[in-house]
Amino acid sequence: MVQKILRKELFDLPDDIVYLDGNSLGPLPTTALKRADNVMRHEWGNGLIRAWNTADWMSLPQKVGDKIAPLIGAPKGSVATGDTLSIKVFQALGAALKMLPDRRVILSDKGNFPTDLYMAQGLIDALDNDYVLSTPAPENVLEAIDDTVAAVMLTHVDYRSGRLHDMAAITKRAHDVGAVVIWDLAHSAGALPINLTDCRAEFAVGCTYKYFNGGPGSPAFIYVRPDLADQVKPILAGWMGHEAPFAMDPKYQPASSTERLRVGTPPIIQLSVLDTALDIWEGIDMTQLRAASIDLSELFITEVEARCPELKLASPRNPEDRGSQVSFEFEQGYAVMQALIDHGIIGDFRAPNIMRFGFTPMYLDQTDILKASEMIEYVISNEIWKQTKYQTVSRVT
Amino acid sequence: MVQKILRKELFDLPDDIVYLDGNSLGPLPTTALKRADNVMRHEWGNGLIRAWNTADWMSLPQKVGDKIAPLIGAPKGSVATGDTLSIKVFQALGAALKMLPDRRVILSDKGNFPTDLYMAQGLIDALDNDYVLSTPAPENVLEAIDDTVAAVMLTHVDYRSGRLHDMAAITKRAHDVGAVVIWDLAHSAGALPINLTDCRAEFAVGCTYKYFNGGPGSPAFIYVRPDLADQVKPILAGWMGHEAPFAMDPKYQPASSTERLRVGTPPIIQLSVLDTALDIWEGIDMTQLRAASIDLSELFITEVEARCPELKLASPRNPEDRGSQVSFEFEQGYAVMQALIDHGIIGDFRAPNIMRFGFTPMYLDQTDILKASEMIEYVISNEIWKQTKYQTVSRVT
Repeated sequence: MVQKILRKELFDLPDDIVYLDGNSLGPLPTTALKRADNVMRHEWGNGLIRAWNTADWMSLPQKVGDKIAPLIGAPKGSVATGDTLSIKVFQALGAALKMLPDRRVILSDKGNFPTDLYMAQGLIDALDNDYVLSTPAPENVLEAIDDTVAAVMLTHVDYRSGRLHDMAAITKRAHDVGAVVIWDLAHSAGALPINLTDCRAEFAVGCTYKYFNGGPGSPAFIYVRPDLADQVKPILAGWMGHEAPFAMDPKYQPASSTERLRVGTPPIIQLSVLDTALDIWEGIDMTQLRAASIDLSELFITEVEARCPELKLASPRNPEDRGSQVSFEFEQGYAVMQALIDHGIIGDFRAPNIMRFGFTPMYLDQTDILKASEMIEYVISNEIWKQTKYQTVSRVT
Repeated sequence: MVQKILRKELFDLPDDIVYLDGNSLGPLPTTALKRADNVMRHEWGNGLIRAWNTADWMSLPQKVGDKIAPLIGAPKGSVATGDTLSIKVFQALGAALKMLPDRRVILSDKGNFPTDLYMAQGLIDALDNDYVLSTPAPENVLEAIDDTVAAVMLTHVDYRSGRLHDMAAITKRAHDVGAVVIWDLAHSAGALPINLTDCRAEFAVGCTYKYFNGGPGSPAFIYVRPDLADQVKPILAGWMGHEAPFAMDPKYQPASSTERLRVGTPPIIQLSVLDTALDIWEGIDMTQLRAASIDLSELFITEVEARCPELKLASPRNPEDRGSQVSFEFEQGYAVMQALIDHGIIGDFRAPNIMRFGFTPMYLDQTDILKASEMIEYVISNEIWKQTKYQTVSRVT
């Protein structure tokens, strides 16, 4: 049954804020405290080592993967969870390069999230041969895909601008020239409809602390196309991806399923919290969620542009071309964002001049958007951001 | 101030059991529930994205590393935390091979914990050249170290037998021939005195859910010798190891410190629980802890051998040659262990025939050891283990 999208009652959000940063860290689901207490007090505290069986910790990564799968248009059994997104990028890229050993180009774009580019650079350094990481402008990616490309590795939604890559067109072009495709869904999983099955990309990776509300540092996920699950070579050949981890076989024999992309002992507390957070998605229609997200972001752009001509839209104007965030450029964006946060409107800032606002219709409505727009106008028009306390640079925004 | 070793009151252990598996998963520290509740309810729930600054989540991995450092004889700032032990093995090995590009042998031993061997196999497969993983018998490692060896990668305490490698002698021999050394401290960190500074090994890795009681799947750690911290090449070049993660520089520039061995977004909930668990070590003298551990294990061996001649000691008899665990071989060890667990004596089993018992003098005393020994005698003498319910194989023991 499709349920309504707005479900604020399922989140423990402070009363006095408008949270426009669920694209960076989702809020606390109301069920998460109880679940964490249970996993710690009963499963760990009382169960101790026995909980690997009695609480079925061994299956938890797979169980969580199976809850993520339908939200990204993937079949059950095709998503492995654990580690961080950086690690999952490395795994996907390592496996992709093995699939096309005669090609030497990794194609990304210059706007990709830095850690994706860094992980590629680290892998290239390790391989110590003539691999090249190519990073054209995002709009030039499609034409840069040729038969020298081993892997196309892109983030679907740009973390700064929210610009959306055409997943279907890029994947098709890559497949036409025999390249492998890795989609980083960090800013799209849980934000808009994704259909990995139709897309036919070989790999997808993503994180779960943004739109999936799994909590700070909750585990990442990796999808591998089902027909490849028993073929991909795991560069990170950990024991939890072994066919029989507790056989203690000295030789690595990967599992015949996507589980071969598991690595080490899973973070059970964080996985449990994530497991509970994913229950919120039961019955959600991603198309409806996307429509609600667009309604909110369109309202926000209209209001902010009318109120604050000083701010320049840094996201695509066409809602179909952006994810579930809207960014504005402003030279003093850092100070403005500090002032906004201090006044209860929480977005974030990305260097050098981007103010980001995320739209999460599960816990945001039009009233919130209007309240945020009014406060942005107040901070800009009255130059509240010029106060010294908002100029101090802290490490993370 | 040196404090007494036994501090049962700091752990939430069930009343009706003797827990001899702290070498696999440590018990719940009493302070952990409150800390987890605080990080979830206040830091995440109220702080939301702001908590990266207000709760200083950014520094938490380093703070935790600095609590681990003195427990392994390392200076502050030399231990990075995060990921899993498998990942940390991969990082250390990847960096080690870069230090000696003309050598092709990775020397381990055939009894090493499987995931260490697997991670090496995965890396070798990726590098796709003539690297060799050599795994002599543990007792032959020292003589196998020659100038063809790039990296000596060993687990200090054998996970099955508890046999202890001579860390000083092996490291010295390796350095004499110009090889790099990686010590896996999974079964020794928190179990016995370790002095990485004196040892001069280049790398050490370990996990925190065993003797450090960090909870199921708590983050791993990696040590790099301080003089190398600004030189080692991070194969896993994640954004959290970047010199300035939030500069969003498209080019990877590793931090000038051990922090370059961080990878992705840290698991804040698990790290917080670990942070609290490590406070238990305040004032602990590792030499006294080791002496208490040996007292317990010696008593256990004496009692079990007197009561159950059917069991064959699988650990070194000399306590100086073993870690903080004692293993016995018994063909029906699996069933015996199931029966013991059912009767409140919790150890574990490792294929094919090893019953393991861990000794953790922070929450075990002689009364516990006698109670465990009596129950082992009861289960063996009365053939309790022959009951059908103890013969069923579950996945983890």
